[in-house]
Amino acid sequence: MQVDVDLKDFSYKVFIDELSQLKFNQNVAIITNQTVSGLWLKDLLSLIEAKNLNIISIPDGENYKNFDTLNFILEQLFVAKFDRKSTLIAFGGGVVSDITGFAASIFQRGIDFINIPTTLLSQIDASVGGKTGINNKFGKNLIGSFHQPKAVYCESKFLKTLPYREFVAGVAEGIKMAIMFDKNLFKFLEKSDLKTQNEISKLIKKCVEIKAKVVSLDERESNIRVVLNYGHTFGHVIENNTNYLKFLHGEAVSIGMNMANHLAFRLNLISKDELVSIEKLLIKFNLPTRYKIKDIEKFYDKFFLDKKSSNKKIKFILPNGIGKYIVKDDISKDIVLEVLREFQ
Amino acid sequence: MQVDVDLKDFSYKVFIDELSQLKFNQNVAIITNQTVSGLWLKDLLSLIEAKNLNIISIPDGENYKNFDTLNFILEQLFVAKFDRKSTLIAFGGGVVSDITGFAASIFQRGIDFINIPTTLLSQIDASVGGKTGINNKFGKNLIGSFHQPKAVYCESKFLKTLPYREFVAGVAEGIKMAIMFDKNLFKFLEKSDLKTQNEISKLIKKCVEIKAKVVSLDERESNIRVVLNYGHTFGHVIENNTNYLKFLHGEAVSIGMNMANHLAFRLNLISKDELVSIEKLLIKFNLPTRYKIKDIEKFYDKFFLDKKSSNKKIKFILPNGIGKYIVKDDISKDIVLEVLREFQ
Repeated sequence: MQVDVDLKDFSYKVFIDELSQLKFNQNVAIITNQTVSGLWLKDLLSLIEAKNLNIISIPDGENYKNFDTLNFILEQLFVAKFDRKSTLIAFGGGVVSDITGFAASIFQRGIDFINIPTTLLSQIDASVGGKTGINNKFGKNLIGSFHQPKAVYCESKFLKTLPYREFVAGVAEGIKMAIMFDKNLFKFLEKSDLKTQNEISKLIKKCVEIKAKVVSLDERESNIRVVLNYGHTFGHVIENNTNYLKFLHGEAVSIGMNMANHLAFRLNLISKDELVSIEKLLIKFNLPTRYKIKDIEKFYDKFFLDKKSSNKKIKFILPNGIGKYIVKDDISKDIVLEVLREFQ
Repeated sequence: MQVDVDLKDFSYKVFIDELSQLKFNQNVAIITNQTVSGLWLKDLLSLIEAKNLNIISIPDGENYKNFDTLNFILEQLFVAKFDRKSTLIAFGGGVVSDITGFAASIFQRGIDFINIPTTLLSQIDASVGGKTGINNKFGKNLIGSFHQPKAVYCESKFLKTLPYREFVAGVAEGIKMAIMFDKNLFKFLEKSDLKTQNEISKLIKKCVEIKAKVVSLDERESNIRVVLNYGHTFGHVIENNTNYLKFLHGEAVSIGMNMANHLAFRLNLISKDELVSIEKLLIKFNLPTRYKIKDIEKFYDKFFLDKKSSNKKIKFILPNGIGKYIVKDDISKDIVLEVLREFQ
């Protein structure tokens, strides 16, 4: 299966379960992490031919998505005499793809990179769309660029070794897309347990199609792309409050979606039935939907730390029924606090 | 005077001697260095109105165009709670404009910046075209991005305090453009001593027009933009051999052009008269044209370190008469060494 991502300047394809021989006439570096390389690097290497093939392995985990790791990657590329025609391959989850894309975007003012995501989260969301970046002490993804991959290869087979908790954290982002854009996908997820590779591939394809459409309409997140942050406004505060330790990103988004839904319900945007059915779906996939807020005022204030907010107005991305979104930036603080109180 | 830079995605203006009141409804940071701020910051501040106005002063000099200074700038922006709508103003020479543009390109995946160059070199060349970057231990401008400014303001009055040596280093890049693209500009420079502001403004305008045209044809340096590297292939090796200490960039380019011209003469691309008249013009502006090469083999090898070369072919950008260029990548090593020998 293939999905096209059509952008103004150029287009690229997302291949689903179609990875076969890849040939390069230039230098190639595979950027990966210890975990993924242990499990799958041998498989990948058997498929790749290049003039020079380098492996750059970085430590696994969000903590290493920083300037030091970025520098480590860049320095190895210079040592290996990479030039403007060289290509990077990101082989791992979101951390690997974000930092590889960023390295590719600033190495000699930009070289090509290819994404081969190995987590469900990055297959259905992060690997498509060209958002790259690193974290710093002020927050996540605060330094970065928009740099589109040349191609993306999503292989459901790589998910066989993905821990269940990480798998369902990816499902959370799939549920996010369903609620925002696709009622049929929501129904599919209500029926399916995502136990077979066929069902998983279907989920990947549906999500990539949605993501590709959104990105082609709004590459730089000036309007509709912001909808993909549904659940994230709340989720980022939860991640921040728990020092990014307690919840996986998708888990925080799951709770964040439930909070956003309570706000949507309060504003009569969704019915009680819809509110309940979404939480039921999240729980079916063993995703958390609740988080005890200690101080609702402090929680509220942290919305403003989110880079997606500016000019002191918070954009809330809410469901408007299941399968439709609405963006609201005029919700009074009182109403938001009222909803947050339900999570105290 | 105004010159338009027309790009595929968007266009911007270069204003020459037209800087007046600038109003911003957002946060603005002026990035400058100690030298420029001491001389001209008060003048600039009297012209700028912004919601919040921050001054970030970095140390003066190419040595500080590195990751540490970049981080220093970015951290101050986060501390000052800059967001995606904030704007940076680069107020200084090439170092300030390169690092400010790079910071703007990666702060929260890209914010606006404006160039107000204060050296002749950056007014006629560096500030237009969106090349941004920093140096690292492997070389100059090896990390960076293409990020176009929102506007450029070239004020000839700022050149009043520019040391003469730096002024003529800028003239060297003007001579470069004349030789490559504009015989009339070459004749103008032969006649003029660039002693009046009028003459200087004329030079700036002519060069910005050339630069704007080249950049609009080839934003990412895939073809014609490479012509602006005339003199740089040799110049970079000279800069590298002298640890970037002995020559200003424009001075190294001046010698580099003379070396390139000897190669062009050897290949019958320019006449003896032309060769001599170019060197005469460089000397008129007290620019160096000679450099004693110790080891021509080593000098030759260093061409391959230049990021503009790839696949082991060196692109030589040469004059084809005065006012016309030619790019050659098939010149035998023997011929190049023969020419280098003239500089032993």
